[in-house]
Amino acid sequence: MRAVDLIAAKRDGAEHDRAEIAFLLDGFLAGTVATEQMAAWCMAVVWRGLSDREIDDLCDVMVHSGDVVDLTPLGRPAVDKHSTGGVGDKVTIALTPLVAACGVPVAKMSGRGLGHTGGTLDKLESIPGYRIALEIPELVRVVGEVGCAVVAQTARLVPADAALYALRDVTATVLAPGLIATSVMAKKLAAGAQAMVLDVKVGNGAFCRTLDEARELARLMHGLGTRAGRRVVCEITRMDAPLGRAVGNALEVAEALDVLRGDGPPDLVEIVRTSAGRLLRLADPALDEAGAAARVADAIASGAALETARRWIAAQGGDARVVDDPWAVMERAPIVLPVPAPRAGTVHAVHALEIGLAAVHLGAGRSRKEDPVDHAVGIVLAARPGDAVAAGDPLAFIHARSDAGAAECARAVAAAYELADVPYSPPPIVVETIGA
Amino acid sequence: MRAVDLIAAKRDGAEHDRAEIAFLLDGFLAGTVATEQMAAWCMAVVWRGLSDREIDDLCDVMVHSGDVVDLTPLGRPAVDKHSTGGVGDKVTIALTPLVAACGVPVAKMSGRGLGHTGGTLDKLESIPGYRIALEIPELVRVVGEVGCAVVAQTARLVPADAALYALRDVTATVLAPGLIATSVMAKKLAAGAQAMVLDVKVGNGAFCRTLDEARELARLMHGLGTRAGRRVVCEITRMDAPLGRAVGNALEVAEALDVLRGDGPPDLVEIVRTSAGRLLRLADPALDEAGAAARVADAIASGAALETARRWIAAQGGDARVVDDPWAVMERAPIVLPVPAPRAGTVHAVHALEIGLAAVHLGAGRSRKEDPVDHAVGIVLAARPGDAVAAGDPLAFIHARSDAGAAECARAVAAAYELADVPYSPPPIVVETIGA
Repeated sequence: MRAVDLIAAKRDGAEHDRAEIAFLLDGFLAGTVATEQMAAWCMAVVWRGLSDREIDDLCDVMVHSGDVVDLTPLGRPAVDKHSTGGVGDKVTIALTPLVAACGVPVAKMSGRGLGHTGGTLDKLESIPGYRIALEIPELVRVVGEVGCAVVAQTARLVPADAALYALRDVTATVLAPGLIATSVMAKKLAAGAQAMVLDVKVGNGAFCRTLDEARELARLMHGLGTRAGRRVVCEITRMDAPLGRAVGNALEVAEALDVLRGDGPPDLVEIVRTSAGRLLRLADPALDEAGAAARVADAIASGAALETARRWIAAQGGDARVVDDPWAVMERAPIVLPVPAPRAGTVHAVHALEIGLAAVHLGAGRSRKEDPVDHAVGIVLAARPGDAVAAGDPLAFIHARSDAGAAECARAVAAAYELADVPYSPPPIVVETIGA
Repeated sequence: MRAVDLIAAKRDGAEHDRAEIAFLLDGFLAGTVATEQMAAWCMAVVWRGLSDREIDDLCDVMVHSGDVVDLTPLGRPAVDKHSTGGVGDKVTIALTPLVAACGVPVAKMSGRGLGHTGGTLDKLESIPGYRIALEIPELVRVVGEVGCAVVAQTARLVPADAALYALRDVTATVLAPGLIATSVMAKKLAAGAQAMVLDVKVGNGAFCRTLDEARELARLMHGLGTRAGRRVVCEITRMDAPLGRAVGNALEVAEALDVLRGDGPPDLVEIVRTSAGRLLRLADPALDEAGAAARVADAIASGAALETARRWIAAQGGDARVVDDPWAVMERAPIVLPVPAPRAGTVHAVHALEIGLAAVHLGAGRSRKEDPVDHAVGIVLAARPGDAVAAGDPLAFIHARSDAGAAECARAVAAAYELADVPYSPPPIVVETIGA
């Protein structure tokens, strides 16, 4: 078998068999398939696509390129969740202890942020002491003791994905749906959960700009997961405006913990509660929708979710006082600048991409992988789509390190708002569900 | 400017401007555009193609990536020829001294063979002492003195082409018509000739398998040359059967020299005389077709072509006795095995690809760039398309190093012949001409 022949086959639209896919991917990792050959193959895949069978094989080869987490010591099926990434998406931080408080274990591996979307690991590192780097046995132990953990993916899990992603990133081949679905699902399958909810975001602030793209990605990921024997639900959710009010690391942690107190912005609460209910029903198919919703509501009302959050954060070395008094332990930015509404009206849009980029520029995110992140800075939306404002009312508050940075960010945030004189009611956040 | 953005643009079907093409190609040579990025770009080009304007820019950037030959010291416009490569194609060896003998200088740079097609340099190295590596000033001096020279392309001429071709070779991106045309024409433009004949071969033994592919490549190369201010004629010629009778290095040299004696197989004679006439008329537009043909016939009949061949070969260090007594100076293979016809009939086909591969297997060519070439071995066709044979008549003769090699080659050669009971008249060798 020769790499150049396999590239030519994909270039001409042929379907690879499993041995060919393994030859390419294993060879790429071993250095016997050259980087430039893998790059040409990736572009041929962007062109010609991958069949469902090829995707299954590619995913399986990727899963077995490294370690696989064994969660059977937990004695109960564990669940997982994934989001394709959005602005203000702090769902994991609220959802994980909430589901664990309902008796379903969650062993979650997360990533860092890049570009206009933040990363859960960066957010959690706002909590003093929180350790993201747990080896797999420690991860399983923490989940066994407190019901959940949120850690960084170890380098030994799906090493093929990291290598392939780095290549795709510099060769303009990230956007092949088959490669995206495979990259996500290989990590989910290797992480060992039996059931999962996948949140595919769609809109101006999301990776998928159109509903058709989101549907295709959801279909591919759902198929990969179910054919691999997992129970999977995909939710397509809107990412036109930031999720909730807070954009920025410590600000988002505080908002996520609000949800566990029964507080928090309604769109965030809706996604967290809906996803939690789905995960409970995936773990226990005998449970009906109302029963699952009642358990979720109980976990919040009883304080069990907050207590699980305290135990989880403490188990990972974090200062658990963050749960009850966030700003006693996390750093706040020294400057808080309101962004006044230039006129009276109703908010028709708060463009997520523009808000995300403004937050990155402020220091809350990274343009390049090697950039540091400022945990304290960010943006808090005072007015959200559908809200009416008077001229001069604050649209948002900028949390910044400097007056100049705050002023620049305020201009970008003001430009992300659309105000009009007619009323506006934002559409439901969950657009479609696949596999429920 | 970032390479990844340019790859994405080509992936999405956009047209590059000249600065973008120069950024990619110069960056690739300088190492600031990564090999894997160039590979992904090449596959995007196979997918999306290049516009005529992009091809002009790419070609010009390639020409100026290295030295350019200045032939103005010759005081007369020089001509050049190129063939896209075929089995038994020894046209350059006959055409070059023939045209020079008619008073038109030829400064020819040639390549080595790879795969089923042979290379002129390998053939000429069958002549003891012949030096292919002349620096540019020496090339110009030899052409000035004897009228012609055939040398290897120096590494300083179009270095971008060698680098890009090596990358395309391992990434299954050789076959983009725009890249093929640019690769050929950058070398022709850098080599300094004012006029040229380009022989685009079509058929089972050629790079272009269909007439449409050959027409497109001819159109692209003709356009590139004429827009760069050169006079260009493209001939599309058949490569279904080997050209002439001899396939193999020394065997082909001997056959090419036969043409200068007024002998040689009719298809080879037709191409050599037609191309010579075209080159004379490109060098002197006042010459009509009959006048050019008469000069070519005179050069052969008078012995001027043979004399030019002697002086040319001697000027490049070769043993000029080869012109008059080839087998006194070139090595012959020790074994000559006839391939008997399995039945009586008329030859309807001698598949060029199969003959070429059989010759490579015998040692006359290379499967890999680093393989050595055996100058003595080869195949001589006794029966050609249209010839009638009796059962047991020789179809061909195998010139081999070993009995086992000869027997194996004989089986492959027999399988390349198609015999049938009805008569057959092969089509004309020149199918179409562009730019005449």
